[in-house]
Amino acid sequence: MLVLVTYDVNTKTTQGRKRLRQVARCCVAHGQRVQNSVFECSLDEVQYVILRDRLSSLIDGEKDSLRFYNLGNHYQRKIVHVGAKPTYDPGEPLIL
Amino acid sequence: MLVLVTYDVNTKTTQGRKRLRQVARCCVAHGQRVQNSVFECSLDEVQYVILRDRLSSLIDGEKDSLRFYNLGNHYQRKIVHVGAKPTYDPGEPLIL
Repeated sequence: MLVLVTYDVNTKTTQGRKRLRQVARCCVAHGQRVQNSVFECSLDEVQYVILRDRLSSLIDGEKDSLRFYNLGNHYQRKIVHVGAKPTYDPGEPLIL
Repeated sequence: MLVLVTYDVNTKTTQGRKRLRQVARCCVAHGQRVQNSVFECSLDEVQYVILRDRLSSLIDGEKDSLRFYNLGNHYQRKIVHVGAKPTYDPGEPLIL
């Protein structure tokens, strides 16, 4: 299934900027960055729970925001992209 | 249906900052800002096409990125929020 992860991390402090790097690094390890703070992750149920817990442990719940959108398995026709930064479909084979 | 709108606008120039303001203002008029550049919009099919065309006309296709995720009508269980900035469900009555 495809899970969309979006986040807002408060970067007014050094700790905030560190949290942002950690959140981004964790998302990069699990999916495709499609915009600055928007990632598309191809995950099964267990991986989704693990990622959600991991990211939740990295943020400051008072200052930062994480949102997860489960797009299911049939997501291709649910997504429209306009403009720069075209992306690949994480569900399709990547031919190099 | 609920449509998620996410955008990245290149703000290195004055025109870019103007485009950002215009895109944000258009999204605010159509839905709920849930994160800096993430909006949840409750739309029908016609409204969705109109919003997509409107936003596409505001951005610079070479520098900016727009993404639309159609979450359908049964979206409540597809969305998980962790941390700051709780939101309301645009599909539910708002009791003031």
